[in-house]
Parts: sequence; structure tokens; C-alpha cells
Amino acid sequence: MLGKIALEECWTIPEELSNNDPGKFVAPGTGSRLTNELLDIHDMRLKQMDENGVDFMILSFVAPGCQGIPDKAKAEAQARLVNDRLEAEVMKAPTRFAAFAALSMHDPAQAAEELRRCMTEKKGFVGAILNDYQSCGDDGNGMLYFDQPEYDVFWKTAAKLGAAVYMHPRPSNKLIHKLMWEGRPWLDFSALGYADRLNMHILGIVTNGVLDRFPELKILFGHMGEHIPYDLYRIDHKLDRGRFPNMPMRKDKLVRDYFGEQLFITTSGHFSTSALLFAIGEVGASSIMFSIDYPFESIRNACAWWDEHVWPNVNQHDYANIGRNNVLKVLPRLTQEPHNLKPMTPRECQVGGLPQGEVCFGLYNKSWNKREIKTIPS
Amino acid sequence: MLGKIALEECWTIPEELSNNDPGKFVAPGTGSRLTNELLDIHDMRLKQMDENGVDFMILSFVAPGCQGIPDKAKAEAQARLVNDRLEAEVMKAPTRFAAFAALSMHDPAQAAEELRRCMTEKKGFVGAILNDYQSCGDDGNGMLYFDQPEYDVFWKTAAKLGAAVYMHPRPSNKLIHKLMWEGRPWLDFSALGYADRLNMHILGIVTNGVLDRFPELKILFGHMGEHIPYDLYRIDHKLDRGRFPNMPMRKDKLVRDYFGEQLFITTSGHFSTSALLFAIGEVGASSIMFSIDYPFESIRNACAWWDEHVWPNVNQHDYANIGRNNVLKVLPRLTQEPHNLKPMTPRECQVGGLPQGEVCFGLYNKSWNKREIKTIPS
Amino acid sequence: MLGKIALEECWTIPEELSNNDPGKFVAPGTGSRLTNELLDIHDMRLKQMDENGVDFMILSFVAPGCQGIPDKAKAEAQARLVNDRLEAEVMKAPTRFAAFAALSMHDPAQAAEELRRCMTEKKGFVGAILNDYQSCGDDGNGMLYFDQPEYDVFWKTAAKLGAAVYMHPRPSNKLIHKLMWEGRPWLDFSALGYADRLNMHILGIVTNGVLDRFPELKILFGHMGEHIPYDLYRIDHKLDRGRFPNMPMRKDKLVRDYFGEQLFITTSGHFSTSALLFAIGEVGASSIMFSIDYPFESIRNACAWWDEHVWPNVNQHDYANIGRNNVLKVLPRLTQEPHNLKPMTPRECQVGGLPQGEVCFGLYNKSWNKREIKTIPS
Amino acid sequence: MLGKIALEECWTIPEELSNNDPGKFVAPGTGSRLTNELLDIHDMRLKQMDENGVDFMILSFVAPGCQGIPDKAKAEAQARLVNDRLEAEVMKAPTRFAAFAALSMHDPAQAAEELRRCMTEKKGFVGAILNDYQSCGDDGNGMLYFDQPEYDVFWKTAAKLGAAVYMHPRPSNKLIHKLMWEGRPWLDFSALGYADRLNMHILGIVTNGVLDRFPELKILFGHMGEHIPYDLYRIDHKLDRGRFPNMPMRKDKLVRDYFGEQLFITTSGHFSTSALLFAIGEVGASSIMFSIDYPFESIRNACAWWDEHVWPNVNQHDYANIGRNNVLKVLPRLTQEPHNLKPMTPRECQVGGLPQGEVCFGLYNKSWNKREIKTIPS
Repeated sequence: MLGKIALEECWTIPEELSNNDPGKFVAPGTGSRLTNELLDIHDMRLKQMDENGVDFMILSFVAPGCQGIPDKAKAEAQARLVNDRLEAEVMKAPTRFAAFAALSMHDPAQAAEELRRCMTEKKGFVGAILNDYQSCGDDGNGMLYFDQPEYDVFWKTAAKLGAAVYMHPRPSNKLIHKLMWEGRPWLDFSALGYADRLNMHILGIVTNGVLDRFPELKILFGHMGEHIPYDLYRIDHKLDRGRFPNMPMRKDKLVRDYFGEQLFITTSGHFSTSALLFAIGEVGASSIMFSIDYPFESIRNACAWWDEHVWPNVNQHDYANIGRNNVLKVLPRLTQEPHNLKPMTPRECQVGGLPQGEVCFGLYNKSWNKREIKTIPS
Repeated sequence: MLGKIALEECWTIPEELSNNDPGKFVAPGTGSRLTNELLDIHDMRLKQMDENGVDFMILSFVAPGCQGIPDKAKAEAQARLVNDRLEAEVMKAPTRFAAFAALSMHDPAQAAEELRRCMTEKKGFVGAILNDYQSCGDDGNGMLYFDQPEYDVFWKTAAKLGAAVYMHPRPSNKLIHKLMWEGRPWLDFSALGYADRLNMHILGIVTNGVLDRFPELKILFGHMGEHIPYDLYRIDHKLDRGRFPNMPMRKDKLVRDYFGEQLFITTSGHFSTSALLFAIGEVGASSIMFSIDYPFESIRNACAWWDEHVWPNVNQHDYANIGRNNVLKVLPRLTQEPHNLKPMTPRECQVGGLPQGEVCFGLYNKSWNKREIKTIPS
Repeated sequence: MLGKIALEECWTIPEELSNNDPGKFVAPGTGSRLTNELLDIHDMRLKQMDENGVDFMILSFVAPGCQGIPDKAKAEAQARLVNDRLEAEVMKAPTRFAAFAALSMHDPAQAAEELRRCMTEKKGFVGAILNDYQSCGDDGNGMLYFDQPEYDVFWKTAAKLGAAVYMHPRPSNKLIHKLMWEGRPWLDFSALGYADRLNMHILGIVTNGVLDRFPELKILFGHMGEHIPYDLYRIDHKLDRGRFPNMPMRKDKLVRDYFGEQLFITTSGHFSTSALLFAIGEVGASSIMFSIDYPFESIRNACAWWDEHVWPNVNQHDYANIGRNNVLKVLPRLTQEPHNLKPMTPRECQVGGLPQGEVCFGLYNKSWNKREIKTIPS
Repeated sequence: MLGKIALEECWTIPEELSNNDPGKFVAPGTGSRLTNELLDIHDMRLKQMDENGVDFMILSFVAPGCQGIPDKAKAEAQARLVNDRLEAEVMKAPTRFAAFAALSMHDPAQAAEELRRCMTEKKGFVGAILNDYQSCGDDGNGMLYFDQPEYDVFWKTAAKLGAAVYMHPRPSNKLIHKLMWEGRPWLDFSALGYADRLNMHILGIVTNGVLDRFPELKILFGHMGEHIPYDLYRIDHKLDRGRFPNMPMRKDKLVRDYFGEQLFITTSGHFSTSALLFAIGEVGASSIMFSIDYPFESIRNACAWWDEHVWPNVNQHDYANIGRNNVLKVLPRLTQEPHNLKPMTPRECQVGGLPQGEVCFGLYNKSWNKREIKTIPS
């Protein structure tokens, strides 16, 4: 599919590598590749985007980013530094990239102000990304959650600016890790712990009424919904208003009701056709957007899944919308200067139809060159 | 769900009962009920619509209607009579009913003219319904199919008038029945034969290029797609353009591609949640519209399925769109005088949320009165 | 997946080519390939089976076969000739091949006798294949359907012999083609007409009570069920016993109930993951068996679908059962001399687990060699 | 469906009410009902089982049970007391009830011994239930996880005894609650926190190699899989063996591979047809068992879902197996004295077929009495 837009795509700065180089924590021998891919935007990344039909990426600073800095001043300084750099990078190719702002969340008012700076004084930003809770405290074990009333000043600003907020996971802090994950550290990360913590934070935001107080606010999250879609029936069933009369969320709404209006998910790092088909029924195609999670997932792998495995198991309209068009409604700034993205029909995306020169529709054509083309080694 | 709109809803006139009374062919003891329900619009039907959240019905003359009259003059006269009656009935309650025109298809130009008469000189019509092929010939065994070039004059008019055409099934004629169905007559009707014949006619229209020549034309069909969605992969795969170089359909399109643009299906008479969930993935929620097939299906049964079984297995947006809003895009006349239908949000449809007075979301509430209310005998 | 067994795999004899060479009816330039593939068993076919993890094929004479011969004596002679040849071919490699008997169905008793001859005097047969109706009559337009009472003698024998019967589609005869398909001939074949006719015959067998009178009888059919699974709700709903009191099928059973006990489907020629996932829910994994439809489908394409697209969207147990083990229960002769097939665990099929040398599970491995291996041109 | 067996069904003893009465934590006015239902076995419970086609329940002591007692001696004493009582209750009606043993998990060897006592010296036990982690320490904030090597002595005994272990969730302890859930306490329980914690424990058991060391061991868990099935692709993908070379789980297996062999889920408290249909594809019908979660869910509600909403969206074989037969394979003791449960065919379960006196299959019969019968107020 041509014209794909991806939303959860990471990048870092050299200054960050000394205290947070994801390349140090991956399989031996693959770290330098990862580090290089994180630092790069306009070279390898863009080349792979071109080769795989990815029209556009929204870049974000690698997790945990500012959320991992317990020192308020340092976190705020990093946010500004990162956002200035992101702006510069995006403006080198604004028809191919936009950015989510990095924010220190120590001080909600300061976070709001930095978001305002990005959204009004810069051109490349379309929202913000928050890496779960904000670390704080002398030992770094403090955790600030943004579903608490003091953060309303931040959410109010985000809503007013039309800045969608992408909730991104992060590893647990040292205290929680020691209490819960020590005997099974491999589960603390992207396999399980990421979602197990982030879904609490997201549902905290929903059930504490943030979305009700700011009905223009849009929250995005990845990995096919951080476990939430599969459990929506049970979540709503068990949030019994008789049992929890003080839960601030509107009494006449269900968590389910916010999807497609204020809650949106992406496919980042969960390339399962069956899970996607389930999510299309449960939360609706209009609630779902394609994403990769580069460079923690390969662009080629994500696109091979989307281009050859998902299609034609999903109808062309929902497919083109999930792959591209939905995000233009969720983040309408993408349709304006300097990005100027436009919706594309399935045909414009080269979805559906018989590929030129083909006479027979099927998984692969007779000569198998459709597969062979894709497998040229990089 | 409030605000439901249903599209494949039958009605007849007393004059027709002598030669086509469906009440004669159903289970003993149920025929008179069926006959009475077919004749009625504003009494029992409207009452049940009110009780079951059906806001609006598009009425059509019972199959095979004019398609079952081999005599050209008689068929044309019946069409005019039926359409005049339908107009009168609709205009008694135009905010609750519209109509599909009945048409004799012996003469494509005459059919086009009668459709023009309905769509421009009357107020209650939003399209036409065709009951599979047109019977013709002295013995009534002739079959006229509308995918042939001589019918382009009709399709051109339908497209120009913005009149969607609902393709409805009918029993086989005596010759085909004798040749194929005699040893298993029960299969000739709605259990199987209806779809086995109509899907050929529909795909004939597609593959003979009618939709390509008239890109504004919209074709609707019921029963969750007359077997087509489940076989779309195979249908497109086996329409090998190398093997069939003379097939008129555009070489660069697939049958799959027309869904949601020129092909639309309804749920009439196929109240299967699993089939619906499959269709949502395969042809897309925007291609699907709720319908009942009254009085061959009960309004209460169809609505119990839709209101209690489908929800919440389908997300609220697709659910409200399938239940109501999609048809307003497919048949935009419904949004104009004298019908003035408006799209409704899930909330306006009372979809989602906790029903008033409930504290716990679930299949049924604790007191079970949700189910009890529905089961009060009429 | 290693160990795959395929059931709807065609073969022909040179003598048949003059009056039925499918190679004449396919896309220009591909016919001789098809003809050669139909004639071959132990060369190209076996090589491709080895390359693609197909352990075993059940061979059957290409459609319409004896069902296409209106002359009784000729049809019976062909059946004997074909079956003798099939036996000889199977016995050259009985651990890789078995056969379905070809049968003339002009005379049910003679068909029963020929089936008995194959099942008791030969070693390679595990059942029979019937290509829809039997052509008969001087003009070849007569159609004999096997759901009529006179065929009970045949079904009784099949049941007694433990011979499953595979119902295979065929093109319409000249009369029906002229009456129904002339204006859209491309639909008469595998894209639509095959299923539209065969599903009537299959449901004729069910609703005429054949399965009830011979509860040991098993009927198999391909193409993901010839449209039936998607419409099961409607089929059962509309076979209203009040309306059709004379339908012979047991009054206390539904068509749905026969699946997995007497009705089984295969995946032949319908390589749609979404359709398969639907069928798993609707008729059950135990009712489904992998098949290819070679050489009308390529072995590589079918296996690429099964090996890389279906997995891991289907759990390993159902996957290995559909791919191999189910057929050993449906056709227990396969587990005996001379075939000696054994059930295999998912692990023995190399389903699940991390492939040797891999450290990361995913759609494709990092080096992409998983895909590259598969794409070596033949 | 007749013959249903339910596995996650709670019960308590009067002595426990003072320190753990779930009735105190539910919606005002409903607590005493809940308390009474927990204490009762042979009165209201059995009556409702009879009314709703529940043939058999496996009873377990209400969570957190012994896992909630930080004092080793008290926890062990409670386990013995509870198990003695459970035995007495089960033996009053052993054809309707069995039990999972309650265990203190402070000392793995003592737990093993108490399990041995239940499984060999008593007659009513078929396995054990563990309520997530074992609380310990003076402040009760200690957490013992059973995936650590010192628990191998327990797992070894469980495997040897053929005692399946049901992993049941529980609320967080005070420390974790304060650190993570304080600002959103309603999420700490069954809506989210239960699964967010328990899935870590379950996957800890898997990834720490417990199932590999004891291949006869079977682990059961409820709520449609505690979020795991929907994320299986991502879980296996992200447990990168290159990144986590010290993860003890077999290098050649995936988490996915254990389902249906050593991991099994139940439907308790997650009555979503769409989630069930997804799970059937993803982990397989043979991995799934019906359960209710009584009295936290109503028997009637669970059975209305299973009997009227799931059927006929799931084929009869998988439906009867999930509803009844699977558990007889997972817990073969149920088929022996004193329970003597036998597998039932779909027909014996009154699944499929036309109900007596009906002539038309459909969601509800014409007279609607099928629904009305179910709605008699209790």
C-alpha cells in the first residue's frame, strides 16, 4: 500500500545515548544497528520508507525520555532541547515527517507551556508523546500519574491546542521492578509489563473523567491497544457504578464509548492479523491507525505484514483508512502547512485492483515475482 | 437501538393476492397472518416499528412482483398501479416510510421511464427494486437478465436519477425448477436457491461492466450478501483475465473493489452475529445496512438480534452506521423532503452508555427487566 | 508445516485429453503446463510436494470425468480404466498417494459395485469422488442427482465400505448454460457456478435424508464449503418444517448438526485466512481439512498461504489437525496398509516453536532468509 | 445447553467473613446477597444450577483466601480447615460438585503435602487454586511468587498427583496499591488490576521453565485468559531469546505452544461472544472451558450468554466441548468416583437440532416463550 503513515516511530539524540541507549539492552550484536537507526532520520530511515510505501512518519523521542528524568530542571531542559532538534529535523523534510513533542511532566503548567511553544511557535508538531508516568524524587522511584486533578491544566491546554497525546509505555522503575518483576525481568518490558502498566494509566485518565472534562482531547496508544480492546466487555462490566460511586467518569458512558471519539489505537509492534480483525469489530476501524515502532520493529517487516498479510483480509476502505486516512482526521494539522497531507483513495494507495500486468488475482502471482521483489536483500 | 432504518420490507396489494399470495406457501396456520401483515402498513407494522426502535422502512412490492408477469403490458400496468399506491401510502407518513419503485423490465426504456416517473413526479421514492430476472415468453419460462447491453438505457437512467437499485431474489421459473430443483423443492426458495440465482445476476451486472459504465450507480442486495462476501477471494481469483479476456469489467478492478462504492449489502433475514462480524472485515461496515425482510421475518426477532445480540460485539460507530446512517449516504434522498432523515450519533440512538438507572454494564441487568420488557407478548 | 495432506488433487489420463483437456480452457500459454501437470504424478508433483511440506495427496480423476459422459457404457468403462490406472499409480508410492474412485453414476447399483471393487480388491482407495450430477440422455442434457431414493443402494454401500464421498463441482451442461449462464459465461465455472450448483446437490443429499438413513456416511466438499458455512444460520432458519412437512431430513436435526460428523469441508482453491477463521468458528476446526486443488492452484501458492499466512493466526492444535490429522479420522484407511499414515503433533509438523537458529519469533526473521528460501524459482 | 460444568466458582466459610467478606466491598444493598450466596452450596446455588443447565461446579475458597494471610501458621491452618469443609460439602453431592484445594504457599513443601493430603486422602478434590502471590512478612506486603525455583517441589507434586492448578487473581497488597493504584482504586480489582498482575505471574511460571520441568503440569486461568490470548503474537515476539539469553523456558518453544497442552483458560466473568470467537481461533477451542465466577457473576446471566448468545455462533462440537467435555480431559479425576462425569454429545447436551415442538430454527421462536421461560423472576 502506498501512502502509509506511521505514528509511533522513535528517534534519539547523541547526548541521550550515554544515559539511555536502547542499543545496550538488545541482543548482542544488534545494538549498534539499533543505535544508528535511532539517530538517523533522513538517510536509512527515509530510504526504507520509500522502499516500503511509508509516506510519512510522526517522530518521537525515544522512551522513557523526559519521563525517565527524576530531576525537574533536567527533564524540562531535555524537553526543550529535544523539541528544538525535532523541529529542525522535521523542517528538513516536512512532507515526510512531523513530530510529537517531548514533555517533562513534573509541572503540569510547565508541560502545558512547552506544548504550547511547540504547537504555536514551531511548525512540525502535531501533538505530544508521554512515556507513561513521570519519574521523580531523589531516588527516582516517585511516579507521577497524569490522571490526577492537578494535571487538568495540561489536558486543558492539549485539548485547546488540538494536540493529540500519544501514551507510550516504559519500563518500571527500580522499586517496582524489585517488588514485582525481579524474578522474571524479561517480562518487565515490551512483552508484557509495558502494557500491564500503561493500560492502568490510560484507563486512569478515562475513569478519572479527564476525557469528560475535555471532550476535544484525543488520546492515542499503540500495540493494538495495550490489552484493552480484548477486555472491553469485562472492563466496563466490572467498573460497577454501584460499587464505585466516586469514580469521576460520566455515569452514562462506558469506556467502550470513547473509542473512535477520544481514544485511538495503533498497530505498532503487534503485527497479528487475527488481533487486528478482532479490534476492527470491537473498537472499529475508525479507531485504529497503522504504526510500526521503528526501529524496535523493522520497517520492512511491518510493511510486509500490512501489504501482504493484512490485505485482502480487510476491506479496502477500512484498510486504506487504517493505513493512512484515519490519522488525518485525528491529527488534522497533518493536512495543513507544512505537511499538506491529503486523504488517498484505495486506488491512489494502489490497494485493490489487479496490479499492472497481472491477469490473475491471488496471494502471489504465478511467477512469484511479487514476493521476489520484496525480498531483495538490503 | 433507536433510529433503525430497514430497507427490504415487503408489502402487497389486494389485487395481487389472487395470483401471488405468499400466505399460501408458508406453514399451515400462519398464512393469513402473513397476508395481513403484507397488506398492512400503518397499523400493526407501524406499531411494531415503534415498539422495536425502527424509525423508518423503505417499502417494496412483494416478490416476484412485476418480474413474475411474463406479459409485458400486464407487468407495466402493475408497476404503475403499485407505484401509485406506494406513493399514496408513503405520503400518509413520509417521515416513517419511503419506497422502492416496482418496475416491469420487459422493455428497458419503459422501465427507465417508469423509474423517472417515480423519482421525479412522485415524492416517496428513493430507488427501485428488481426481483432477479424478468419472466417473459408465452410459457413464462423466458428469463431476461439485466446485465445485458440492452439494459444500459435503464442503468443510465437509474444512475442519473440517483436511484439505487435493490436486487431481490425470487423463486425459479417452472422450467428451471423442473430441471434442477424438483427433487428438493424446499431448497428452491429462501434457504438456498434465492441466493444461488441472484448472486449470478449481481455478479453478471458487475462483470459485464455495468458498474464501470455508470460509476454513479449503486446496487443493493440483502441476506448478508447472497453468499458473495464469504467467497470474494475465490471469486476474484477465478475471474482470471487471461482465461476470460472478453469479460467486459475493468481489467484493473476486482469485484471486491466495488463494495462500499457501488455494491452494498443488508442483513435482511440472516441474523447471524458471526456472519455479520465476518462481513464487517471482508466488505467493510460502510458496505452493510440493517434490514429485516418483514413480514417474512418478524420485526421483533430482527430487532432482538440487532439490539441485544449484535451489540456490544460491534463497536458503536459501525453499529450505528449499519443500523441507520449508512443508508443516508447510499440513498441521500432520504435526507430530503418529505423524509428529512438525519444521521444520528450512537448516543442519540441510545447505543453505548449505561441505560438510565443502571449501575452495572452487562449482558442483562441484575433485575432482568431489560429482557422482561422485551418479552411482553404483543 | 511438514506432513500436510491434500485431498482434492487432480490427475488425468492421456486418453481423456481429446475430449476433456482442461488445458484448452485456461489462459493462452498456460494450457500445456496444466495438461502436463495433470498427467504427471511422480515427477514434478512429487518434487513440489517435497519442497512444500506436502506429505500426501489423495488423487482423483479430473472433473467432470465419468459424470460428464452421458453414455452409460462408456462412463462405466472409463471408471474402470481410470481406477485401474489410479491403483497402479498409487501403488508406485503408496506412502505418498491414495485415490478416490471415479464412478459412473448412471446405475446406482453398478456404481456401488465399482466402488466395492476399488475398496476391497484394490489397495490404494479411500473413498470416491463424484463430480456433481451425472450427465445422461441422448443430448447429454439429462442430469441425474444422487439425492434421490434410487441412489440409496449406492450410499448404503459407500457407508458400509467406509468410503467417504467427495462431492466435486463441474460446469453446467449445455442446456443450463444456455438458459442461465450464456450472457456471463465466465461465471459458470470456478468463480461462482461451481458452488452455486454443487451446494444444491450437497444440501439435497442432506435434506433428502441420505445422511440420516446412513449415519456412517461421510460427505466431503471443497472450496471452504461451497458457500454453505456463511449461510448456515439462514439455511437452517428457512428450511421451515412447518412449511416443508415432507422434507425427509430428520425433524430434530439442523443442517448445522451434520458438520464434523457427516459433512466435512476442505480449503481447496479458497486461500482466504479470514474465510478460514470464520469457518473455524462456524463449522469447527474438526470439520475442515487442508487441500490445494492442484494443478488448478499451484502447490507453492497453497502452501505459502498455509505455512506463512494462516500460521500463527490459527492455534497450533487446530492448525495441525486441519493441515493433517483430521483426514486420518475421516478416512481411517489412510492409517492402514499400504499408506500407514500417522497423526503428527504440532511439533512433529514443525508448527510452533522457534525455528532452529532463530532467537526472535515474528512474521519473518531479521535476515529475511525465511522468505528468501521460499522464493527460489523452480 | 445441558451438562455445563463450571470451574471458577467461589464459596466461603462463616469464620472467614470477619476478615474477608466480599459482601462488604460491593455496591450498597447487594452485599448480603453476595455473602449469602458465598456461604451456600446446596440450596440456592444448586437450584440455580438446575434451572440453568449447570450440571457440575468445581468449588474453590474465595480469594484471596490463604494467599491473603501473611502468617504462615494461620494460612496453613486455614487451608486445612477449608479443605476439610470442602470435602464434607462436596461429598454431600459428589455428582454435582468437586473442589480445588486451598493452599498456603508460604512453604512449598507444606503446600505440596497439603495438596497430597487432599488428592489422596480425600475424594472430592481435582486440583488446587492459587490466588496469585502469597502475602507474607510482618506488614503483609511481602509477595511470594511461585515461578521461583524453590517452588519446584510444589509443582513436581502437583504434576505427579495429576492436580491441575487454577491461577486466580486477587487485589494488590497495601504497598503496591499505594504506589500504583491509589489515584484510581476502582481499577485495582476485577476491571483491570486482577489481570494486569496475574498475567505476569502466569507468564513467569511459563518463562521460568516450570512447565518444561514438569510437562504433566496443567495451569488453568479464567476471564478469557487474563489478557494473554490477544497479545500472544507480541508476547512471543518480544521474548527475544537473543536479548534474554538467561530466560529458562525452552529455547525451542513459544508461549503460544503451551495452550491446549499445559495452559487452559475459562470464560469466567468475561461474557463476550466476540472475545470468545477470537480466543477460539487464537488458542483453540480445546484450550477453553466454560466458567461463571459465581457469585460475582450470576448463574443466570452467564448461562443466558452461553445458551442464547454464544450458540449458534460457535459450532456444536467446540461448543459442547467448551461447555462441558474439555474439562474432563484436563481434570480426568472428574470422570472417576465419586464424580463419575461422562462426556456428552452435543445432542445429549440438547445443543443443535430443533427443540421439541419447534418447526422453525431461529434466534427465538415465534411465540417468544423460549425467552419468556428464562425470564421468570427469581
